[in-house]
This record gives sequence, C-alpha cells and structure tokens, in this order.
Amino acid sequence: MNLLILKAENIKHNLATVAGRQLEHLISVKKCTIGDSIRVGQLDGMIGTGVILALNERSATLRVTLEKSPPLSVPLILVLALPRPKMLRRVLQSISSMGVKELYLVNCHRVEKSFWQSPLLTEEAIEEQLILGLEQARDTIMPKVYIRKLFKPFVEDELSRIINGTEAIVAHPNSPEPCPMNLQQPGTLAIGPEGGFSSYEVDKLASIGFSQVHLGCRILRVETAVPVLVSRLYPA
Amino acid sequence: MNLLILKAENIKHNLATVAGRQLEHLISVKKCTIGDSIRVGQLDGMIGTGVILALNERSATLRVTLEKSPPLSVPLILVLALPRPKMLRRVLQSISSMGVKELYLVNCHRVEKSFWQSPLLTEEAIEEQLILGLEQARDTIMPKVYIRKLFKPFVEDELSRIINGTEAIVAHPNSPEPCPMNLQQPGTLAIGPEGGFSSYEVDKLASIGFSQVHLGCRILRVETAVPVLVSRLYPA
Repeated sequence: MNLLILKAENIKHNLATVAGRQLEHLISVKKCTIGDSIRVGQLDGMIGTGVILALNERSATLRVTLEKSPPLSVPLILVLALPRPKMLRRVLQSISSMGVKELYLVNCHRVEKSFWQSPLLTEEAIEEQLILGLEQARDTIMPKVYIRKLFKPFVEDELSRIINGTEAIVAHPNSPEPCPMNLQQPGTLAIGPEGGFSSYEVDKLASIGFSQVHLGCRILRVETAVPVLVSRLYPA
Repeated sequence: MNLLILKAENIKHNLATVAGRQLEHLISVKKCTIGDSIRVGQLDGMIGTGVILALNERSATLRVTLEKSPPLSVPLILVLALPRPKMLRRVLQSISSMGVKELYLVNCHRVEKSFWQSPLLTEEAIEEQLILGLEQARDTIMPKVYIRKLFKPFVEDELSRIINGTEAIVAHPNSPEPCPMNLQQPGTLAIGPEGGFSSYEVDKLASIGFSQVHLGCRILRVETAVPVLVSRLYPA
C-alpha cells in the first residue's frame, strides 16, 4: 500500500477514520505509531498527507491535507472476455494500478460458464481489487467496470457507440498487423479468452470497426498480455 | 498449454511417452483421443507435431515429428530481488513465456528473510514454473535461473562481468530518465523488491555501470512491472 485511500464519507473536517484492512496494514505492515505522517488520497479526489492523531486496535484517526492531483489516466477502454476468477483478481488490480479507467467484462464463446458464478463479480469484491490497485500505484480515480453477458447485443448496440472517437483494436494471434505502439489518441482494446475469440466474434468486432493486431508469435496469458498491451499502447 | 514439451529422455526413435500433469492435461482439458495431432516441442530443441498412438490413464504414446525452430529469445538478462513466493511463481512463468533466458534472483536489504525458505526455490519447483511458461508461449528453450544470496560480492565480482556488452539499467522510482524503449542491443535489467533497492544498493549498481530509469509516477507490483519492462525494452 503506497497510498492510503479514504472514502469521502470517512473524512469530516479534515479528520479521517480508518478501520478494517487498512488499519491492519498501518499497524502490522507499516508499523505506524501516533505522530507518523503517511501518504493519503481521497477516493476519486486529491492526494496529500495524513498525520496519525490516534491509533488503537479498532480504529485510527488522521488529520489529512489534500493538495495534489492524482496521476494522469490512460485513455483506454478495455474490453475483456471474462477471465477465470483467480486471474480476474490480478487483472483488476493490474489495470487499476496502470491507470485504465473503463473496463467491460464480456461473455463470449470460449468463456467457461462457471466463471460467471464467481463471488468476485459482486460490486463490492470488484471495488476491493480495484482499490488495491489504486493504493499500489498512488492513484485515487476508481475505474468503472461494466459486466455484459450477451456478446452480440453488446457489440452491436453498445460497443459500436463506445468506440466512437477511439482507435479500436482487437488482440488476435496470427493477425498480419503488429499491435501499434505509443498511440496518440484514445483507444479501445479487446482481448479474448484463453483460446481466443471465435472467428464469428472477431468478424463481429471487425464489422463495427475493430482492426486485428498481434503481439508476436508468443501466446501470453491474459494477466501478462494486459500489462504488455496497455503499456505498449500508452507507455508511461 | 499451447505446446506439449517433451524431454529428450522421453523420446526414443520418434516415440514419446507422456505421464503425470501433462497426461492429465491431454485427457481432462484437451479431451484428446487416439489419432489426435497436437503441437509438441523437445525441451531445448525443435517444435513440431505429435500424433497420439496410445492413451490410457497411466501414459500416452505419441509419434513426434520435429521440424521448426522455437521463437527468438529476448536478449535480456534479468536481475530480480527475490519476490514473495506467490509472486515468484507468476514471475517465473511470465518471464519464461516472454522469452527471457537468464534470471538472477538476488538478496538485498528489503527482501524478507523468510522468502528464502520457500519450497519454490528448489531446482525442480523452478523448472516446473518455467516449463509452464514455455508451454504457454510455445517456446522450448529453458531459461537459466541463478540464486545469489549475497548482494555485494554478486554485484562486485560477478555482475560487473555479466553486464559486459549489454546496456545495464536499474528500474528505480524518481530517477530522472524514463526507461528506454525498443533497445537495439542486449540488456541487463535490475528490478528491486517491494519498497525498492536501498540507496546503497542503487549506488553499488551505478558504480559498476548501471543507469537508473523510471517507469512513470505509478508504482507497479513486480508481477506487473516485469512484463511492462521486458516488452518495453524488447517489443515483440
């Protein structure tokens, strides 16, 4: 945790209250004591400093001063075939830490039905992973995650509008074109499941304006491909 | 598993025997049956096709034809502060899938002592993770992993020779220079632990010729930073 993220409802008159996982982290990992000053940020707000005024096993109170903007976001909309739950957790953290602010988790032919039963897909569980990513990267702006269980209507009715004004690309092995580097405009990137999008799905994406790109001859797992692709399109 | 990797000792007169985890994968995940043809590669050798001649719960026999070279390697030597075991597993798989062939796992000030007790550090456990990465990326060339528990003698006596003829860089937050992109020569990349290398360690690396580079203002976990850095230095 490189930044303690506070929700607005937990800050009153510059005094913030911390409990639960974050309190545990302050005590056990950071070994904080009263008087210590730590980096804090308000969720969806500014970044600054918190001085610990009180600390016990139930809660901590901090006086916070917020004066700095969070880092720039990556102008990328990510469309991801729902990965298996273990991987989803890591992908949520990594996209959040890299500054992606819009993620669509979609169903498609090669997504295993059982993945949709994962308790990780509740709003609270998703938020928890995203906050871990923000805390890691010292960002405060919560990414928005949308769940779309029907591929065809999503692509036809919604995605066709979402990609307006963006460079829309789908990562697909064996495409003739390599993935572009250092995009100078907003982008939409679609990444398929293990085994890839079906031809029908790639054609559907192509029909609304996606170009197909490859990432070399190596096939990477989604948890590796996501950081590689995001940083290739928008290097820090 | 996108490539079934066979050890030379399990291939005789073009007939290969498969058991254990790989057999389980052929049966349960790939649902293979006799007559099926799958992608195979010989560890540290060529890639080709295997036709399943016999298959039961104990073993499978394949007739293999090997005719293609594995993909190009990444000309990068990675020097990594030993990460926590959970992360080490993923890093081993990801560097292996990305084509890195030389990894030094080193001790330094902010590496927790307990990490060195991990059963993941046995030769067999490391090999297992690396093979998973090769199978993922359809590569056959086993990376070499070296364990170095003493930072100072490693840097002074060994690393100073290892970096000869390479561009040596250390990823260090707050450095003035950004990490280079698309290196046109071999590289050596050092990545610190959570919390970073100490000033002493960075100075030590600088003293033998490492330049310090940053990756933007976001601090990424090592499992995210490794794919980002490797692909930034050597894009596919």
